Amino acid sequence: MTNPVLVEVLRGGLVESAHRGALAVFEAGGKSVWEMGDTDHPVFPRSAVKAIQALPLVESGAADAYGFGDRELALACASHNGEAAHAELARSMLAKAGLGEAVLECGAHWPSRHEATIALARAGKTPSSLHNNCSGKHSGFICTCAHEGIDPRGYVAAGHKLQEMVREAMEDVTGAPHSPDNRATDGCSIPTYAIPLKNLAKGFAKMATGQGLSSERAKAAKRLFAACMAEPFYVAGTGRADTALMQAAPGRIFVKIGAEGVYCGAVPELGLGIALKCDDGAGRAAEAMIATVLAKLLRRDEILSARLDRLANQPITSRIGAEVGSIRPTAALLGI
Amino acid sequence: MTNPVLVEVLRGGLVESAHRGALAVFEAGGKSVWEMGDTDHPVFPRSAVKAIQALPLVESGAADAYGFGDRELALACASHNGEAAHAELARSMLAKAGLGEAVLECGAHWPSRHEATIALARAGKTPSSLHNNCSGKHSGFICTCAHEGIDPRGYVAAGHKLQEMVREAMEDVTGAPHSPDNRATDGCSIPTYAIPLKNLAKGFAKMATGQGLSSERAKAAKRLFAACMAEPFYVAGTGRADTALMQAAPGRIFVKIGAEGVYCGAVPELGLGIALKCDDGAGRAAEAMIATVLAKLLRRDEILSARLDRLANQPITSRIGAEVGSIRPTAALLGI
Repeated sequence: MTNPVLVEVLRGGLVESAHRGALAVFEAGGKSVWEMGDTDHPVFPRSAVKAIQALPLVESGAADAYGFGDRELALACASHNGEAAHAELARSMLAKAGLGEAVLECGAHWPSRHEATIALARAGKTPSSLHNNCSGKHSGFICTCAHEGIDPRGYVAAGHKLQEMVREAMEDVTGAPHSPDNRATDGCSIPTYAIPLKNLAKGFAKMATGQGLSSERAKAAKRLFAACMAEPFYVAGTGRADTALMQAAPGRIFVKIGAEGVYCGAVPELGLGIALKCDDGAGRAAEAMIATVLAKLLRRDEILSARLDRLANQPITSRIGAEVGSIRPTAALLGI
Repeated sequence: MTNPVLVEVLRGGLVESAHRGALAVFEAGGKSVWEMGDTDHPVFPRSAVKAIQALPLVESGAADAYGFGDRELALACASHNGEAAHAELARSMLAKAGLGEAVLECGAHWPSRHEATIALARAGKTPSSLHNNCSGKHSGFICTCAHEGIDPRGYVAAGHKLQEMVREAMEDVTGAPHSPDNRATDGCSIPTYAIPLKNLAKGFAKMATGQGLSSERAKAAKRLFAACMAEPFYVAGTGRADTALMQAAPGRIFVKIGAEGVYCGAVPELGLGIALKCDDGAGRAAEAMIATVLAKLLRRDEILSARLDRLANQPITSRIGAEVGSIRPTAALLGI
């Protein structure tokens, strides 16, 4: 099936580009609340499921053993900007397990935030694996290994004990099979498995409510979500949608972006999980989609809903800062 | 109508993202050679039409008066990387007209090429308007004004004499009306007008062959195309698709990318003009589309066609450089 156009990009008064996509909003028990497009088609959730992948860090007792608070847990669920505070926190997580950045297998890249890249270059430095947007997740993986007495070397491989723990959590939470047939490799070298949006939406509702999870897993899930909502800067960073959306309603919205236009999230007070993907992989569109979905789900709170609507409608500016266009949800997505 | 999927992005063995689009290949006389999708729908060509916008620079005699060679003319048609050689050449173009960078109204931004940004930051510098990817086009505009005795101030406004000259050239070459109704503002502050892909394709065939243009305009068009094909580094730069495609067949292929997934081009030996747009605005997809179109049009030259096919199929790598996916044309685009 052809997914509907959910977001459009205007220049002047005309539509310049258009983004199709699919979305799913589910209750933990499996009830579908809102679906658009093909929610059965398997998508790679990429970094959108980092909170699920961080369950073993909490469940194993590693997070407590190393004294991790909300910031460390948020960073374990993050695709961060590589700002100095992010890189430093990843370093300190590894240090608590007696390890250094050399054990990271995610690879190095310049910080996602342009200003952080400029600052690093001006200081005459080059980026390390600590600046990789996934360094918090990887540090969490490595700390889990260290606590469990597992040799961390090769922890990114599908056959490593750590990835088996992660896969078990992913299958339990989403109810979708994870096998070599639907497996590929993420940018940070760990496996990613293509699964339906509806499974992801149900999984995030389970994470938010604890329904359908063991009591230990439910507790770990709530702790991770609470940490991200309490420290949204450590989930993404300055100027980022994840951070802005969670700051818009402290403790009431959990969201996490994934590469190639994926967004997952949850509204705990409504018991709902959300998963969406922009067909073409555009992050700008996925951000407008998730903000619109949240504004609609939370429309009874008019002030919050208006705040989310503003995040869903972003200006496009020229190089001198003049507003020359905009990104906005379509009538189809708004349901008008 | 819904445009077909022309390019897909794979991760492992599965399609992760998909890009729809439309394309038009026309002869100068108006004969349609190949069309896919809606080629009547107006699109903003953005920077893809810089060679047409540079016609007044040559036709006015300004290019000769200031002694511009192939490199300067290529830069006037460029969306360059902001590498040191690009910024320096823009500076020298303005200097030949006795002007400095302060007259540029395009705005400043960090160089498009990451390595150039790092080098600038390491040197403790900030970018100027000369690093703007459009600085060559703007320098050409300003030199045209200087030669014609027109006050360059405000040259980016639709009502300025320079933009009237540019608009006349655009309407003559493309045969499409340019009015306030289809006008918006480009990122570098000049007007951009939404016109059908089929008009753009016909226009680029006219530029390549001279058919349907005045003899003076035909001569200027051929000179600009020849300059770009002779100095493709100055049209884009290191690692860029425009440069690689023109280097693949020196003197035989003209191409120019535009923002939001536009590509225009021509194959002079076949008398064909090309225009395409990826619906969602993705440059990665537009690059795969134009390379595939060129490979198909030039398939009788098997070595060149294979070279273009390789440019149409790009690997996606992880942060440690492992190949984890690819970008490729669909069977629909390949016509298989």
